[in-house]
Amino acid sequence: MNNKEELDILRHSCAHLLAVAVKKLFSNAKLGIGPAIKNGFYYDFGLPRTLTNQDLSSIEKTMKDLVKQDLSFEKISIPIEKAKNQLKDQPYKLELLKELSDSTITLYKTGDFIDLCRGPHLKSTGEIKHFKLLSTAGAYWRGDSSKPMLQRIYGTCWKTEKDLKKYLAQIEEAKKQDHRRIGQLLNLYSFHHEAPGMVFWHPKGKIIYDRLINFARNKLKIFGYKEIATPNILNINVWKTSGHWNHYKDAMYFVSGFNEKINFGLRPMGCPGAIILYKSSTHSYKDLPIRYAEFDNITRKELSGTLQGLFRLQQFVQDDAHIFVKEDQILTEIDSLLKLINEIYRVLGFHYKVYLSTRPTDYMGKLASWNKAEASLKDALAKNKLDYEIKEAEGAFYGPKIDFDILDALSRSWQCATIQLDFQMPEKFNIEYIDKNGKAKRPVIIHRVILGSIERFMGILIEHYAGALPFWLAPVQLMILPISEKHLNYAKEIAAGFEDRDMRIEIDERNETVSKKIRDAELQKVPYIVVVGDKEIKDKSITVRARSSKKLKTFSVKSFIKRLDRDN
Amino acid sequence: MNNKEELDILRHSCAHLLAVAVKKLFSNAKLGIGPAIKNGFYYDFGLPRTLTNQDLSSIEKTMKDLVKQDLSFEKISIPIEKAKNQLKDQPYKLELLKELSDSTITLYKTGDFIDLCRGPHLKSTGEIKHFKLLSTAGAYWRGDSSKPMLQRIYGTCWKTEKDLKKYLAQIEEAKKQDHRRIGQLLNLYSFHHEAPGMVFWHPKGKIIYDRLINFARNKLKIFGYKEIATPNILNINVWKTSGHWNHYKDAMYFVSGFNEKINFGLRPMGCPGAIILYKSSTHSYKDLPIRYAEFDNITRKELSGTLQGLFRLQQFVQDDAHIFVKEDQILTEIDSLLKLINEIYRVLGFHYKVYLSTRPTDYMGKLASWNKAEASLKDALAKNKLDYEIKEAEGAFYGPKIDFDILDALSRSWQCATIQLDFQMPEKFNIEYIDKNGKAKRPVIIHRVILGSIERFMGILIEHYAGALPFWLAPVQLMILPISEKHLNYAKEIAAGFEDRDMRIEIDERNETVSKKIRDAELQKVPYIVVVGDKEIKDKSITVRARSSKKLKTFSVKSFIKRLDRDN
Repeated sequence: MNNKEELDILRHSCAHLLAVAVKKLFSNAKLGIGPAIKNGFYYDFGLPRTLTNQDLSSIEKTMKDLVKQDLSFEKISIPIEKAKNQLKDQPYKLELLKELSDSTITLYKTGDFIDLCRGPHLKSTGEIKHFKLLSTAGAYWRGDSSKPMLQRIYGTCWKTEKDLKKYLAQIEEAKKQDHRRIGQLLNLYSFHHEAPGMVFWHPKGKIIYDRLINFARNKLKIFGYKEIATPNILNINVWKTSGHWNHYKDAMYFVSGFNEKINFGLRPMGCPGAIILYKSSTHSYKDLPIRYAEFDNITRKELSGTLQGLFRLQQFVQDDAHIFVKEDQILTEIDSLLKLINEIYRVLGFHYKVYLSTRPTDYMGKLASWNKAEASLKDALAKNKLDYEIKEAEGAFYGPKIDFDILDALSRSWQCATIQLDFQMPEKFNIEYIDKNGKAKRPVIIHRVILGSIERFMGILIEHYAGALPFWLAPVQLMILPISEKHLNYAKEIAAGFEDRDMRIEIDERNETVSKKIRDAELQKVPYIVVVGDKEIKDKSITVRARSSKKLKTFSVKSFIKRLDRDN
Repeated sequence: MNNKEELDILRHSCAHLLAVAVKKLFSNAKLGIGPAIKNGFYYDFGLPRTLTNQDLSSIEKTMKDLVKQDLSFEKISIPIEKAKNQLKDQPYKLELLKELSDSTITLYKTGDFIDLCRGPHLKSTGEIKHFKLLSTAGAYWRGDSSKPMLQRIYGTCWKTEKDLKKYLAQIEEAKKQDHRRIGQLLNLYSFHHEAPGMVFWHPKGKIIYDRLINFARNKLKIFGYKEIATPNILNINVWKTSGHWNHYKDAMYFVSGFNEKINFGLRPMGCPGAIILYKSSTHSYKDLPIRYAEFDNITRKELSGTLQGLFRLQQFVQDDAHIFVKEDQILTEIDSLLKLINEIYRVLGFHYKVYLSTRPTDYMGKLASWNKAEASLKDALAKNKLDYEIKEAEGAFYGPKIDFDILDALSRSWQCATIQLDFQMPEKFNIEYIDKNGKAKRPVIIHRVILGSIERFMGILIEHYAGALPFWLAPVQLMILPISEKHLNYAKEIAAGFEDRDMRIEIDERNETVSKKIRDAELQKVPYIVVVGDKEIKDKSITVRARSSKKLKTFSVKSFIKRLDRDN
């Protein structure tokens, strides 16, 4: 058994332990489900009232008592009809039982507590030592908003006290760096009930957003992309052709009634637009690869309980691209893509891990094409000296893919870039290029994102840098603080001195003390604070305090600009 | 009677003449309506088959015969019930009659032909001499897509042969410069049935689009705007508060079902987003004016028959702004806005006319506020030495406005910029600022666009310049033509020499003659064509052909760059 499997059993057992404790405190609690998840577990309950933090402490205490009692996790195999009787007060469990076709099923018993469960579990509660309850949240039964809202309790559980402490310290640190807290503090964006899961970008947030897109755009130019833009609503028939209607309908929003006839779907992905544009003219083999980049605004339906700051939204923009290649161009194209991705993450300050997902059993297309494509991906990875992990048979049925997890300053990993080969969409949309001999051939499409959702990536960046964004991304790069009103004109002169450089400069004209102004600029994570007073006017200088060093240094504007060029 | 009223009577009479002719050729034609419009008239008919160009010629010939017969336009006043009997074969006319509450109504009789009509008309058909039928189009009865589709015949009619010829020449010229033709020729964009009235921007069109927005953005920075971005779908309740639900519902698309509860409207205007963002924090009088700019993507429902290239779309982006001011800031703010608008139109090469629309009878708000506001607008216009025409009492009920019509190279005028004072939205959304004494006060909102729809403005620009866009907007600024394959490397060297300048350069690597390559680059309206061959390699020079002069001139790259800086 590997470490992950062991941890999963430990955490799932801890979820049962939680349920035993909840049943002790709320005897009529209705049980939902309680799986192990990344770093912990949860359990959903139907309860007579909303849980408080006080409740969470009581439940945790009860769990500790149960650990001391060292109750065994007893597996019971019984006929399904008997199980229905045993669980007759548990409507959610009965609903799950109804869907089982087995004649015999397994229950797990811990003290008086009985749960429908396939297991496996630990031997007894005594083996669960290092855990903590973390939070509660509302969650619809089976994630379905037409069903009752249950209360979910989240917890974490580890093999050693050291692991637990390390994890708890990590979440404490993450809380401080939470982009929702920092976003508010730095006045970057807000959310409003008028548009759940959609960002209202304030001016400072919009600056970062535009800088980030601009940065990506400049790299695209170097790597031979052409930018396009296509509508964010398309005839429902397009989504039927693309397969989104069948596989993705529940996550889509629909719009009705153009001329009382055509219904539209708001795009949950950008592919069809790029493909329709590709199809609007004839392409020769000489034109390939064609690299269409699009910063496409995406709309996806999410349950309100799953929305989470910039990390999970209903509307966002992707740094999307669709690359149309001949089969024999896959290697060089992937090679170039790996270089582009490396270049972008390098500048943004992230290390990353690479995963290659290979042919699944239900693959479509020719085996020879798959073999050639996978060999090309491996060659490109080797050529770029990238270590990677193979996820055997985990590719999509329409093509193999490479995923990139970036690692942030809190050692968390985030799946961002993905490169996806696609043999299927070209078939579905019947797209072609004309080969050397004048014959129509089918190209392969490479779908790829690098930042992924720009909004989510900004959330990651904000947490990674704890709000202290690099100079080139900072919404205010330089804050000038005149010591008193009589230094304001000089402050404006200084600001004008940077005019040619298109810098983002603010002057703090408030009638406050310099120390208060410095404190506020620091809270705003401004990279450079410039103080000007009598001395500076006399010397025609500026006194600069860099965010990185906190030391005061005196410069002329000219020499400070030189310093900026060196440091940033 | 002024000239416009005279022309309207002439054209409306010509529409009747058209109907007489159509009834002669299609005795069972069902009559819709036939009003005078700008530059002409139309008439809608229910006909047994679709009209051809041949039909249009026959109808026009019949009209000319009728003119020769000099039939009188005879006015007949009769009881409405008698009229219903007279028009019993005309279902559309009967529908109109049903809505009239008058006991006596007027018909107009021309030969055998009788039409329900208030008039007035000319005396007889002999007075109509200078007219031409132009085109046909489908049009729903009363513009309602649930009603039958009729056939609309468009025509033009003038007082003199000279006026008619001038107008026909103008439409011929406009046809050549039609942005739909040029857009296809230059590969700028396309439309597809999958998204009617929504643009698919090809790479070259996207470059122009971005350049235009970038140009506007740079001006905004200088004029103290902050850019924001807000969601393009908002809870339906917002549109009820804003009044769009009552007044604009039919032109909106709706999206249903967030958590099975909230329904959204796709924004047909950007105001509510900016106002919600303004409300998300407290504002002091010291912070005002707050200028929120937003390039907001707008969705409006249009009938398919009304869609027209980039000029009328279902989705587009506006260079929108909402400025929150104290009442006493209106003058200085409008003054600054007039300067900004002038600056933008000057660079883009347009003259413009200005209109001030004043307080209507059903105004809301205080009379004193209106008087002060109108005086401020007039002062600002005077201060900027702008001639303007007053449209008495044509302001919106919520505030006075200034409109700008730009004049293009074909002497057509286009309403683009508009500045709209708004006393109402601040009330509806209950927005405030804190004044000097700590009291909550109501700001005024200035809504304004300058380009209006970016897409429509691009259509205007393309027609204005007949595709030969100014250097800074041209998607390809420099086309390098190597005379043969052996000059390709030198061509690439030359291209690299411009690297620092971020120019848009292409090399025509095709195996074609130089004259063919030059012809193609000219058709693409590229500002500078650079030819390189043996001679240029030997002299380390380039031979340049400027779009404006067509003469060949030899430069070093360095001296050509100097020339570019001087000319563009």
